[in-house]
Amino acid sequence: MEDIVRFGVSIDSRLLKQFDKYITEKGYENRSEAIRDLIRNNLVEKEWNVGTGETVGTITIIYNHHKRELTETLTSIQHKYHASMVSTLHVHLDSHNCLEVLVVKGKAREIKIIADRLIGTKGVMHGKLTATTLGKELS
Amino acid sequence: MEDIVRFGVSIDSRLLKQFDKYITEKGYENRSEAIRDLIRNNLVEKEWNVGTGETVGTITIIYNHHKRELTETLTSIQHKYHASMVSTLHVHLDSHNCLEVLVVKGKAREIKIIADRLIGTKGVMHGKLTATTLGKELS
Amino acid sequence: MEDIVRFGVSIDSRLLKQFDKYITEKGYENRSEAIRDLIRNNLVEKEWNVGTGETVGTITIIYNHHKRELTETLTSIQHKYHASMVSTLHVHLDSHNCLEVLVVKGKAREIKIIADRLIGTKGVMHGKLTATTLGKELS
Amino acid sequence: MEDIVRFGVSIDSRLLKQFDKYITEKGYENRSEAIRDLIRNNLVEKEWNVGTGETVGTITIIYNHHKRELTETLTSIQHKYHASMVSTLHVHLDSHNCLEVLVVKGKAREIKIIADRLIGTKGVMHGKLTATTLGKELS
Repeated sequence: MEDIVRFGVSIDSRLLKQFDKYITEKGYENRSEAIRDLIRNNLVEKEWNVGTGETVGTITIIYNHHKRELTETLTSIQHKYHASMVSTLHVHLDSHNCLEVLVVKGKAREIKIIADRLIGTKGVMHGKLTATTLGKELS
Repeated sequence: MEDIVRFGVSIDSRLLKQFDKYITEKGYENRSEAIRDLIRNNLVEKEWNVGTGETVGTITIIYNHHKRELTETLTSIQHKYHASMVSTLHVHLDSHNCLEVLVVKGKAREIKIIADRLIGTKGVMHGKLTATTLGKELS
Repeated sequence: MEDIVRFGVSIDSRLLKQFDKYITEKGYENRSEAIRDLIRNNLVEKEWNVGTGETVGTITIIYNHHKRELTETLTSIQHKYHASMVSTLHVHLDSHNCLEVLVVKGKAREIKIIADRLIGTKGVMHGKLTATTLGKELS
Repeated sequence: MEDIVRFGVSIDSRLLKQFDKYITEKGYENRSEAIRDLIRNNLVEKEWNVGTGETVGTITIIYNHHKRELTETLTSIQHKYHASMVSTLHVHLDSHNCLEVLVVKGKAREIKIIADRLIGTKGVMHGKLTATTLGKELS
């Protein structure tokens, strides 16, 4: 059940003109949509700084699947934290390298620990945690 | 075919002690692995700043699939850029909200445009582009 | 000469409630002020990504002034780029360590090069470039 | 009193070649200096995430000094937190706009609050907090 309200923003016309240019470049339909995105980005950032609420993140890792025991190690870490693991996508980048994206649910602090474990595994070439949101209060 | 070489780092003992604490916290097996990760993070960052080489990124978006026409719009954007789309993972967060991760291959600049289009779509609550690497020269 | 205009933002009441909480925490006087800040942050970020316009940044470096020749090296770098140097603030953190903030004006790309030179100097313990703006079109 | 030790890093020759290119571009004298900077950047980041130790930051703000009462407001905020204020640099960017850099010492959390107050003040166009370090254990 949505409950849409409206509020006014007063702004210098020159600043608004530049914002409209930014909106067009980013492909936003209208100012409200762009403003809501700016607001939500800040709220998600705050949510992750606090770190105690239930949230969701994606962990992207790049690794060479030929490295001895690497696949086993990564799998065992995922099993250790299975309660937080939602789903995994595996992509073969070339004959050696894989990209894996893991969707992880839990407290921000716990997700960070899981990301550290995976990214710190010997043989993982690059890894990043992307902080996002369950979206419950951001619709 | 790997060709492992070795180089020495001179460092103050106090700084090294703190680094060793950081390594333990992050779960790295040894200093070399941690140093290689620091190096690779910087190289990937540089790669994305330059923006002209072939690379890979993941785009994470959160949206409510009940929003009218949203799924269609997101699908049509993905089809427009199908040549860059590698794979997509869809997760049902709850009865309303979805998380979608798209793996996108191409020049950094093009991947950024695709991310802007998807994240800027009306109804997408939160979105982020994660810059990573094909890993070809980072093994 | 300011020319203030006004536009409306439609938003879900729950999202607005959370934004109002954020505004209070950050100490903003009203929503318009907070929204304008979000807009300006994005425009400054874009300005620095493009990198070709005249802008301003601050470079913060931490170093031990007892290190041999360090002060001379830092001074000579600043003189080499004197045309871009606006002003410098020097703070004695303790009997060994100094903090120096340099205000640098020029194209974003040039400011980045100067920051790299200073931060890369042997003996500089920590350094950061802060991207800001001349403010001409953001008032 | 420095106590320099040495440790070895094993690395693929291709990755090292790329790192050497990065080092040259950034103007580092040698690999050790570049590695130490990567290490210190991570430690400073950790220090600010924890947020409880004594540290130092710089707050950069851009504002139009013609705005009514703005200078007074900014000054009164600085006085309220005078115990943390180390020094301030003021630069006249043009006939309207000023850049001010404040060096602030204290716990990371307190410095963040001061930054929020200053940046959230009506009339401040752009503001950023730069997290750095007292350097005591990073030499």
